[in-house]
Amino acid sequence: MADSRIYVGLISCDDKAGLVHQITGVLFRQKVNVTENQEFVDHAASRFFMRTQFEGSVDPDAVQAELQKILPIHAICQVRELKPRTIVVLASKEPHVLGELLLRNFTKDMTTKIAAVISQHPNCQELTERFGLPYHFVPVEGSDRTAHESKIQAAIEKYQPDYLVLARYMRIFSPEFVQRFPQKMINIHHSFLPAFIGRNPYQQAYERGVKIIGATAHFVTDQLDEGPIITQDVISVDHTTSALEMAKLGQDVEKLVLVRGLNFILEDRVLIEGNRTIVFS
Amino acid sequence: MADSRIYVGLISCDDKAGLVHQITGVLFRQKVNVTENQEFVDHAASRFFMRTQFEGSVDPDAVQAELQKILPIHAICQVRELKPRTIVVLASKEPHVLGELLLRNFTKDMTTKIAAVISQHPNCQELTERFGLPYHFVPVEGSDRTAHESKIQAAIEKYQPDYLVLARYMRIFSPEFVQRFPQKMINIHHSFLPAFIGRNPYQQAYERGVKIIGATAHFVTDQLDEGPIITQDVISVDHTTSALEMAKLGQDVEKLVLVRGLNFILEDRVLIEGNRTIVFS
Amino acid sequence: MADSRIYVGLISCDDKAGLVHQITGVLFRQKVNVTENQEFVDHAASRFFMRTQFEGSVDPDAVQAELQKILPIHAICQVRELKPRTIVVLASKEPHVLGELLLRNFTKDMTTKIAAVISQHPNCQELTERFGLPYHFVPVEGSDRTAHESKIQAAIEKYQPDYLVLARYMRIFSPEFVQRFPQKMINIHHSFLPAFIGRNPYQQAYERGVKIIGATAHFVTDQLDEGPIITQDVISVDHTTSALEMAKLGQDVEKLVLVRGLNFILEDRVLIEGNRTIVFS
Amino acid sequence: MADSRIYVGLISCDDKAGLVHQITGVLFRQKVNVTENQEFVDHAASRFFMRTQFEGSVDPDAVQAELQKILPIHAICQVRELKPRTIVVLASKEPHVLGELLLRNFTKDMTTKIAAVISQHPNCQELTERFGLPYHFVPVEGSDRTAHESKIQAAIEKYQPDYLVLARYMRIFSPEFVQRFPQKMINIHHSFLPAFIGRNPYQQAYERGVKIIGATAHFVTDQLDEGPIITQDVISVDHTTSALEMAKLGQDVEKLVLVRGLNFILEDRVLIEGNRTIVFS
Repeated sequence: MADSRIYVGLISCDDKAGLVHQITGVLFRQKVNVTENQEFVDHAASRFFMRTQFEGSVDPDAVQAELQKILPIHAICQVRELKPRTIVVLASKEPHVLGELLLRNFTKDMTTKIAAVISQHPNCQELTERFGLPYHFVPVEGSDRTAHESKIQAAIEKYQPDYLVLARYMRIFSPEFVQRFPQKMINIHHSFLPAFIGRNPYQQAYERGVKIIGATAHFVTDQLDEGPIITQDVISVDHTTSALEMAKLGQDVEKLVLVRGLNFILEDRVLIEGNRTIVFS
Repeated sequence: MADSRIYVGLISCDDKAGLVHQITGVLFRQKVNVTENQEFVDHAASRFFMRTQFEGSVDPDAVQAELQKILPIHAICQVRELKPRTIVVLASKEPHVLGELLLRNFTKDMTTKIAAVISQHPNCQELTERFGLPYHFVPVEGSDRTAHESKIQAAIEKYQPDYLVLARYMRIFSPEFVQRFPQKMINIHHSFLPAFIGRNPYQQAYERGVKIIGATAHFVTDQLDEGPIITQDVISVDHTTSALEMAKLGQDVEKLVLVRGLNFILEDRVLIEGNRTIVFS
Repeated sequence: MADSRIYVGLISCDDKAGLVHQITGVLFRQKVNVTENQEFVDHAASRFFMRTQFEGSVDPDAVQAELQKILPIHAICQVRELKPRTIVVLASKEPHVLGELLLRNFTKDMTTKIAAVISQHPNCQELTERFGLPYHFVPVEGSDRTAHESKIQAAIEKYQPDYLVLARYMRIFSPEFVQRFPQKMINIHHSFLPAFIGRNPYQQAYERGVKIIGATAHFVTDQLDEGPIITQDVISVDHTTSALEMAKLGQDVEKLVLVRGLNFILEDRVLIEGNRTIVFS
Repeated sequence: MADSRIYVGLISCDDKAGLVHQITGVLFRQKVNVTENQEFVDHAASRFFMRTQFEGSVDPDAVQAELQKILPIHAICQVRELKPRTIVVLASKEPHVLGELLLRNFTKDMTTKIAAVISQHPNCQELTERFGLPYHFVPVEGSDRTAHESKIQAAIEKYQPDYLVLARYMRIFSPEFVQRFPQKMINIHHSFLPAFIGRNPYQQAYERGVKIIGATAHFVTDQLDEGPIITQDVISVDHTTSALEMAKLGQDVEKLVLVRGLNFILEDRVLIEGNRTIVFS
């Protein structure tokens, strides 16, 4: 098919018998070619979740409408073409996560397009510009929080991004700001959440004497470091690892965990249910 | 439903459009309650694989026959009740893998029942008998290979096991013996296959200076250490780890990898395709 | 040397120049054969830590006294023969950690000797007795906490153990009880501490939606789940893993983490400094 | 001390009693401040290995000469200042390992300085030049192997690098070329060696049906993929992972394993003994 495209449907609804049969029936009648199906039933909550990926030449809105007809009331159903999404990256002083994103953007390793980088520090400007991308330096000095967030938001809105990615952005947003981007802000926290919430997690980890440290990619909600976790990973440390060395070692985990979590989102593999995620990896 | 039972269907066949819809249609008409579905399409080979788990009160052979009707020609389809399987364990001198199996059998951690232990050494007899299980000591001395294998086979046949589990059994079976238990013999190899095939893998690993060692649970075929891999795991070593210490450290990996692979099989989660496995974990 | 034995010295003291040279000088003059040396300097705290293992035929108390002479004031120095230690295991209902210890005790995989098992439940009695070990069932019913702890302590004292091992013992001891066994009680906590302190960590982990769970071997202090961490490990879970399945999967991590931590202690590889451990693995 | 510097001594020699005492005695008399000591005795081979790191203001050649005096005959002893080394990177078409090195070079995350990149393909030129580094494109076409290697060597010699780093360089060098850089060429092999030596390791891994893939940083010798292993790491795959996806997933392992191995070398943490490495990490 000359203009065959790839689509992904994400469904969450109350469970009932025959859902997969009915959903695949809709797709069969649409004459699309299903290439991946993943389902999960949370038996305790009696909730059904499905990701279906298919190829063809359809109007995704029409398919979504057909699916809604056979799904239970209050079902959440999204069908859209799988294509690169636009992201805006927010960074602070540390360049390692941003650098990873810039590199993958340059080598086309991600199904995304970085539109711009925004920061309250000038540190990452040279790096960003070496990759030919716009860098918005929005200093904190001279603005109160509301004013600063307004400037950040103005910079973001120029690009109409699908997602905001916090690449070790070290400033906490107000609930009002966060609520403007529901399920659209992804953060990398430099600890194995829920351990070491808040400031200086590596220092906290050092003081507690843990033998493993980690990083967590999560959605940002108005509860600091409490949003739904997308993915996590860890590395071993020992008594010889100072808090500073933990921070250094942790950088590799942080950048890979963020990229992994972001890719799950960009490929429409993540559903949020309460404070938990279903990730059809 | 008073006598509701759990069943698992395993299907592999050539891929075609609408398979999931048709298969789930059969199950829907059988009025069973599907609790888990997993599919995989090998697009390169155009092969379809599915595991479906459902609850109800049906004749699994009848469901299997219904499924066969709608599946492509040459489809492999097995539907059976999910219930404990009988295994016979073959061991040699080292007790760690056997001990793990005996303990899990005792605490009912496995969906299986160990019927007996067979060995060409007396070493594990006391341990086996402490758990109240029969131990068949079949010495090699005084028998040629064929005669020894006949005695082993006679001991096995008493128990009509569903699977044979080689728990660090250190003798190589003849192709004739192996062919009597197609897809029914599971071995744990104490290396990260295909590295270090054959004898003394830890000594080989030490000499090559690897920094990671592992273990591999695989089906036994008549090609030594070449059968389909079910699952693998690894641990780190360094220059201070002697071959003997590798063997000691490796024991924990071996026993857990074997148990994991065995559980996959006992829960009907494994399909074999050529020399590869599809594991719906 | 016919009666050559193995000794381990553990030293912690303020750092100063030439310590290794002086310590190895003492050992050289004692004509012992040093087989392993490990040192660590905490530069921030200016503290020196060393483990030295040597062979020979000496009076360890005399070597210790010689070392004390050249060490800074307030140095902590222990030299003792490396030999099996006696442990008493405390268990509750779950048998998996206890079973692992019993198995390793039986196959002589640990440099220790389990003297007895004590429990407030009868569940693990049969398993313990299959291995020929005494089981003290000390029911909670009919005793207040002090009375119950007195009975537990009386049972322990019969065996004069070097260490107390809590193998998923689910009752919290009073500070008074804990203080009777300073640096001698080892616990396995079924979470990746400091996440999920307290009750039902797997349920807590499920509710928070983490993607990795773990276990922590630590010394027991009078602060619940806050004692110095010896070692930790983790495994991945996903949205399909219920709290119950986490508990099941976690068992393998728990038992191996406890065994690893215990072996470090039994081989005199652990020093405690404040709430952190130095583990010369 | 205004001009205090950091030095590292690496020693390998036959083992004998009192070596650590004597070595630390030399350092004590040189009035340097020892900050790290690591020793390892290979008891089977009766070989002693040590890394000692110290601060002070000395002539490293003089310290090395003093150490040689007290070491056994044929001892290998190197003392040098710890400072950034110059490397030349060889790349082919794939940019991920090179990109990681360029990024760390730019953000000063490595104790090294990339002098130039050399390649037989033009692919990585733009990326290299974005970081302001020279790129030597040396096409294969029109040269025989000897002529091509001569051109590569001429390009290398301009920079007099301490080490050559093969960042997924896909051409095999002649033994003559390799011998010009003894213990100075580091390669990343995209498999868990010794599995899948040679071409297309991910395709080989796919066909064998392994459940874990990996990468190996090793010194290049004239035996293809057989040189001493510095460090390795792995990731899990399953039946859904095609050979192409393995290649994609493997990239993250490759780049981090190479960086880790390279950092060990740059910090003088690696000794080679036969075909094995001692890595004082």
